[in-house]
Amino acid sequence: MRLPLGDLERLVGEALQRAGAGQAMAEAAARALVLAEAQGLGSHGLSRVAQYATHLRNGRVDGAALPRLVEGRDAACIVDAGDGLAFEACELAVREACARARRHGVAFVGVVRSHHAGVLVDHLRPAVAEGLVALGFANSPAAMPAAGGRHPIFGTNPVAAAFPRRAGDPLLIDLSLSEVARGKVMLAAKEGRPIPQGWALDAAGQPTTDAKAALEGSMLPFGTGPASGPGAAASPKGAMLALLVELLVTALIGAQFGFEASSFFVDAGNRPRIGQAFIVIDPGALAGSDGYLDRVEVLVAEMLKDDGVRLPGARREALRRRAAAEGLEVADALIAQWRTA
Amino acid sequence: MRLPLGDLERLVGEALQRAGAGQAMAEAAARALVLAEAQGLGSHGLSRVAQYATHLRNGRVDGAALPRLVEGRDAACIVDAGDGLAFEACELAVREACARARRHGVAFVGVVRSHHAGVLVDHLRPAVAEGLVALGFANSPAAMPAAGGRHPIFGTNPVAAAFPRRAGDPLLIDLSLSEVARGKVMLAAKEGRPIPQGWALDAAGQPTTDAKAALEGSMLPFGTGPASGPGAAASPKGAMLALLVELLVTALIGAQFGFEASSFFVDAGNRPRIGQAFIVIDPGALAGSDGYLDRVEVLVAEMLKDDGVRLPGARREALRRRAAAEGLEVADALIAQWRTA
Repeated sequence: MRLPLGDLERLVGEALQRAGAGQAMAEAAARALVLAEAQGLGSHGLSRVAQYATHLRNGRVDGAALPRLVEGRDAACIVDAGDGLAFEACELAVREACARARRHGVAFVGVVRSHHAGVLVDHLRPAVAEGLVALGFANSPAAMPAAGGRHPIFGTNPVAAAFPRRAGDPLLIDLSLSEVARGKVMLAAKEGRPIPQGWALDAAGQPTTDAKAALEGSMLPFGTGPASGPGAAASPKGAMLALLVELLVTALIGAQFGFEASSFFVDAGNRPRIGQAFIVIDPGALAGSDGYLDRVEVLVAEMLKDDGVRLPGARREALRRRAAAEGLEVADALIAQWRTA
Repeated sequence: MRLPLGDLERLVGEALQRAGAGQAMAEAAARALVLAEAQGLGSHGLSRVAQYATHLRNGRVDGAALPRLVEGRDAACIVDAGDGLAFEACELAVREACARARRHGVAFVGVVRSHHAGVLVDHLRPAVAEGLVALGFANSPAAMPAAGGRHPIFGTNPVAAAFPRRAGDPLLIDLSLSEVARGKVMLAAKEGRPIPQGWALDAAGQPTTDAKAALEGSMLPFGTGPASGPGAAASPKGAMLALLVELLVTALIGAQFGFEASSFFVDAGNRPRIGQAFIVIDPGALAGSDGYLDRVEVLVAEMLKDDGVRLPGARREALRRRAAAEGLEVADALIAQWRTA
């Protein structure tokens, strides 16, 4: 069935409310999941509705939670997500960060006792809409080893950044720090295909091309390269970035490490209590808004001199516009499942 | 000749002053270059003395410049390096960022009209010494293409982070975003050896294993992998991070893009006017200092369960301690060159 995005948001929101989420929590999550799906990011879109509903029902998520601001200092504070879904808490965090960045030039807001943040860069959209530059960081249940390590400690720990432009779409950068998404390994395992060297380690910490063995082991940080021998563990660079992100969103703000959180892909498990952090910066306090906007266009023009260059976020934005105009095709069975679950 | 680090700093400082640097500029640069050499980072150490002296003499660096604070808002401001060497300006920037982070929880300070920043993470040492968390970003003359691109736009754009610990050495993360340092390609070219696929493109933007051709072309962002065909340009992830860093230290603060700056490795050229940016965050405003320090140790203990894991910065710190105790061996010819240049 093809549905307008608004209708889809309503259906997803209702499903999450039936699973126990308060209205605001459910609506924020529904907007985020539909936005992800609209951008072609199915792994962070409607496929998560059932997962979130399960976690709401089995207590891994507290549907009654209300995000709460915990004062720190004037340009830095924490939002306690209270074991709820992450989206309402992240919205509050970015709203606060924007207001504080306008006053102080920069702001840092961390989110603790949180859950899956979905498409990280989407949280930064309200900031760029106000002409602010924003960075986002998040951890996730352990999937990758430390540099030189063999057992999973860090999540795939995404980094996001959003840069406003004068007229064109904002530059939306969003990348996880693993070589590939775990979904690609899951697909290979399902189809009985091998995976390339450099994607994963097995449970013993050895490089593997066996997709099933990889699912029992660790994903490798990006940039590891084709690891061929027992000495070829995680490369320093990707793993160092994963450590950087992990510390920013855990020890610094009081959230749990990835290795302390149960996987999102199992039903049972703990309240993950992972973290997100947002840094918002006002160009008006630095180069000046006009100076900033002019110079971004100079860089974009230089980048586009190469035919092969596509601006970050451009593909997602094109898909999002089409979905906003035409709606999205959703399997009837999925809608029925939401309605009756 | 084996020299104590203090004597070496004095010799380097004198050489830079003879080349035209003011005393404070020369001393800050000398401390940084000797510290780099002491940590085993020769490419950012004493080998740079002659380069900086040449730039001071030919006007690419203004030896009379005094770093100047340009007020923005209370938690965000700019340091204008005034076309001087970068080190004194970066010291001022981090000092300001620390003071402002203590008051406001977070601070952002950008450095404009700057030059080569040396070992980026070393600028963060004063922050961790005060128990603050710090991030550093820098651009450099163009060496890497944009994602999907074929001509150099971004520098190797390092990212650094420093996390204080209760007792152990701080965690010092420092990585450039290229697959390998350009120095490795220079060495291969000199020795007539090929380089692996995935390190570089030639001047036409094609993947190459010819080190000489690579020097005429671009370095590839880390994580590109073994590019084998004409479709295999820069991978998105490393190149996206390079774009993120580039925008933070240029458009946002008013510094020049990497593609606007002449290489540091040529004598002639423009004043590079590249940028650096520092973000300092006070754990005391967020998780609390004790909470932060306790939790870092939990993560470190988990990391060290794997024998192969070495904490970031540990090797450099060990070398630095040895050099501080034993001094460094420096070729007499090099010292003579500094004295007579």
